[in-house]
Amino acid sequence: MKISYSYTIICCLFFFCSLYGQKEKNYVYKHVISSEVLGEDRLVTVFLPKNYYHPLAVKSNFGVLYVLDGGKKKVVTNGVYDFLANGVKPAIPELIIVAIHQKNRMFDLTPTKATTFPNGKKTKRYEKSGNAFAFYEFIANEVGEKVNRMYRTSGFNILTGHSFGGLNTLYTLLEKEGFFQAFIASDPSLWWDNRRLFYDAKEMLISKKFTNKSLFLAIANQQGTPSMPASNLHQETIKSFAKLLDNSKENGLHFKHKFYEDREHHSVSMIALQDGLSFIFEDVSFQSTDYKLTREKLQERYKVLSDKVGMSFNPSILQIVNLGDLFSFKGNKKKALQFYKWALEESPNNILIKERITKITS
Amino acid sequence: MKISYSYTIICCLFFFCSLYGQKEKNYVYKHVISSEVLGEDRLVTVFLPKNYYHPLAVKSNFGVLYVLDGGKKKVVTNGVYDFLANGVKPAIPELIIVAIHQKNRMFDLTPTKATTFPNGKKTKRYEKSGNAFAFYEFIANEVGEKVNRMYRTSGFNILTGHSFGGLNTLYTLLEKEGFFQAFIASDPSLWWDNRRLFYDAKEMLISKKFTNKSLFLAIANQQGTPSMPASNLHQETIKSFAKLLDNSKENGLHFKHKFYEDREHHSVSMIALQDGLSFIFEDVSFQSTDYKLTREKLQERYKVLSDKVGMSFNPSILQIVNLGDLFSFKGNKKKALQFYKWALEESPNNILIKERITKITS
Repeated sequence: MKISYSYTIICCLFFFCSLYGQKEKNYVYKHVISSEVLGEDRLVTVFLPKNYYHPLAVKSNFGVLYVLDGGKKKVVTNGVYDFLANGVKPAIPELIIVAIHQKNRMFDLTPTKATTFPNGKKTKRYEKSGNAFAFYEFIANEVGEKVNRMYRTSGFNILTGHSFGGLNTLYTLLEKEGFFQAFIASDPSLWWDNRRLFYDAKEMLISKKFTNKSLFLAIANQQGTPSMPASNLHQETIKSFAKLLDNSKENGLHFKHKFYEDREHHSVSMIALQDGLSFIFEDVSFQSTDYKLTREKLQERYKVLSDKVGMSFNPSILQIVNLGDLFSFKGNKKKALQFYKWALEESPNNILIKERITKITS
Repeated sequence: MKISYSYTIICCLFFFCSLYGQKEKNYVYKHVISSEVLGEDRLVTVFLPKNYYHPLAVKSNFGVLYVLDGGKKKVVTNGVYDFLANGVKPAIPELIIVAIHQKNRMFDLTPTKATTFPNGKKTKRYEKSGNAFAFYEFIANEVGEKVNRMYRTSGFNILTGHSFGGLNTLYTLLEKEGFFQAFIASDPSLWWDNRRLFYDAKEMLISKKFTNKSLFLAIANQQGTPSMPASNLHQETIKSFAKLLDNSKENGLHFKHKFYEDREHHSVSMIALQDGLSFIFEDVSFQSTDYKLTREKLQERYKVLSDKVGMSFNPSILQIVNLGDLFSFKGNKKKALQFYKWALEESPNNILIKERITKITS
């Protein structure tokens, strides 16, 4: 497999974190991957989290969010991520974002080649479709393998897609093992190919195990279906799929679905991504009352998440220090010291942490 | 007034618009403004809309969204904007975004100097506060004047802020004339200084006219108030303010408020910005059924918006051509031609439009 990369730092935004008084950087890298499995060059954009190069994060590993149709959605995705992962009370841990640029999304993202429109009429419009099998190999073995080799990744991978991308996300959950642990499917095109994946799912959801996997499914209030403006087949199929999942609890999947009364097909994707990421990391997200947080409580939470996803999840040293800083700012020296000391256990002799302890105890 | 600028293109992202087959660019500029009124240098980030340099947009002017606390929120803001302004059915016209970086947000954003916490206790914590009067002069006369001189702006300006930024947004609406036409206030800190602005508003909402102004107010389900964890004074004050506005219809303000059951103070700001922009431009936003759109219907919509904001709003030539392209893609040549011909009226002899007409009629 021949892989060539061109690295370009195209974006270096400076963030001013007034609370902690430190300057931070954001990095965006573009990679051109010569894919053997797809037989062509593909563009991939990688967004590193803003603390990737922070002195207290040099040993931290990060989960990865893979975004289908990422060429169009990368600004949106980064905005959603930035909103959730930053601030005093982050809702999710920091992630690396990998935006996959589609060339022909119908070909890449659909699991089968369809020959008819949803209304039953024969069509050649779908002639170039059904390449999801190869496309998964591209993401997992070519993109994913390189991302894992080049960046400090934790092995926790999330896949998200909208419309055909949502269909692909569900296909990957149902039919592909291993690479992804969490999935966010936004108003998926389950009408595709006479609802083929939906019918296949009935069997798979009973016969297969999805232990340690999480799925968030967003359903838009979309009227009409491609080729059938008066039919709600699109919406009804997703709702039926959600029911299937609700009735298949024994397969171990952590599942949540949400119907958005006030959103149609296109206007649902941003909130879907936001709610999906919040669902995946709900065990470790912060609430207003979390000023009562202790080391033990935070550890308990990460234990719950770790058990759920079947991987060891821990707060980063930076998060622990930030909590120390927060309590210090609030005037609670005892709590601040508790978190600083914990951070020092994780990173013994770290000068930045030692300085904080000296400052607070002197 | 001495103003020095340093221009840096720090970000140039390429978008691939598969439907129309054209490459587009995004530009982000950083400006350091030596503010006379604030007596110091301030950083401002300007995001140009992706079609700013499009050959069909060279004569288009753009509205401007001014974002308070923009240093922290600029990725989020740009994500929200990108989500709403792009795609087949954009919900809002393209805008220039100006992110204002706060140095001391309590000082910049609060309209008065407070001496007590909400619980009534005296404090020196708020000693450096109450500079909103000067801060408005900075935005309107120093930042705004330069933005209007340097970029192709339409004169339609939106102000948005969260928390203290929301308070500042309401203060600007109530007490400042002229520069801004639309406002998005996200969970504003109306508890500030013994609810001073709230009490002042009672009088102002009756005595003043707010014709052609729009306000979207987002209310979070936030438990507690600074210094009073058990009191819902924060939330209740905003709700009471919303009631005041509901009962002051005679002042001409276009007003909408929304209570977010499932969002707390920090998690409301992203959806607030999204819903706020959608509200401001609701007259010209696209719905699923808009494939029935005609020239006349689109013009009617822009007339409604123009009457509401008291300024002439028109679809851009690019939007008109894009609609032509959309109908052409859908196989509706007659409609496509209608839009192309309209575009040619707006930009006679334009070669790009002529090419399209030739292609569709040959």
